[in-house]
Amino acid sequence: MLISFEGIDGCGKSTQIQLLKDYFDKKGKQVVVFREPGGSAISEQIRSILLSSDADIHPVSELLLFSAARAQLISEKVEPALKESKIVILDRFYDSTTAYQGFGRESVPTEKIQAINAIASLGNTPDLTFYLKISWEESKKRTAHLEEDRMEKAGKDFFERVISGYDFLSKSEERFIEIDASQSINAIHETILMNLPQG
Amino acid sequence: MLISFEGIDGCGKSTQIQLLKDYFDKKGKQVVVFREPGGSAISEQIRSILLSSDADIHPVSELLLFSAARAQLISEKVEPALKESKIVILDRFYDSTTAYQGFGRESVPTEKIQAINAIASLGNTPDLTFYLKISWEESKKRTAHLEEDRMEKAGKDFFERVISGYDFLSKSEERFIEIDASQSINAIHETILMNLPQG
Repeated sequence: MLISFEGIDGCGKSTQIQLLKDYFDKKGKQVVVFREPGGSAISEQIRSILLSSDADIHPVSELLLFSAARAQLISEKVEPALKESKIVILDRFYDSTTAYQGFGRESVPTEKIQAINAIASLGNTPDLTFYLKISWEESKKRTAHLEEDRMEKAGKDFFERVISGYDFLSKSEERFIEIDASQSINAIHETILMNLPQG
Repeated sequence: MLISFEGIDGCGKSTQIQLLKDYFDKKGKQVVVFREPGGSAISEQIRSILLSSDADIHPVSELLLFSAARAQLISEKVEPALKESKIVILDRFYDSTTAYQGFGRESVPTEKIQAINAIASLGNTPDLTFYLKISWEESKKRTAHLEEDRMEKAGKDFFERVISGYDFLSKSEERFIEIDASQSINAIHETILMNLPQG
């Protein structure tokens, strides 16, 4: 089973992923968590190019770098884990690319992004995607104590477009479970558990 | 004018590019040369990931990394130079991707590679492509003194497929000028000059 978590920074992905991992651990299931971009040696090198604050990266180059990191992570870590029947949880997957690079940057048409997504994910699609939805204002408040990286400096208009991208995916993809992430940590966790397949 | 040079290592691209640049310089034309992958700060960082000998890069990841470096080089260097009416010479361009990643690695269908090429080149197509054709044996002989990098370690079968990829492009793309690169340096240079547009 492949589960992805999506949403803008501060939406609580890390907390919910940890709680879900603990839940599976307690049930005796084997579960691994990977973070996009990154998770393998090569992907981490790519991640450091992407997140360096002074780099003026062209949007198409950014799209292709995220996709390259993804293909490497999938082949090196995700596919072997799935073959061993482990549960794989992804902290961001290709829906982030559609939302951030397609809707956020508006620089590459969504259908081209989705074509590249299909190539970069080596044909893997999540069984379930939990979309933790919060507003930009809430995100800003929750992440105020953190140093801003290149992505976060992009501003309110950018993030409103990213949110509209997630909303679009949430309507068009059946695997999307949209959750109001302004709720309590426990309420969100319960909603996630309710939406897991039985067994 | 955008001119690309293609061919396997040892075919004499660097020598011929230098001679062509000198020719344009003497005629008082403004000309710049860029090397793929690389040519910009971000592209050079990507290049170093690609060429590091110990990295086990998935073919799709490799394809996307080359493409990311290309998009960055095009936006940062090539398009500004073309806008200033300079002649741009590229030491490898997207035909290398088709030949090496498509035909050489056989891991991604050619039509998918060409779709990614179109996105990564930001719509730029060479006016002329000089394909310097040599055999694998000749390439091996000419490059024997150099330390092998990851690409060169791939072996004879790989390079025969790369050559067949260039041959395919040479037949299907009108901009391709195929030159027998076992000839003398001067004979090749003269052929290149004969194929330049007048003026």
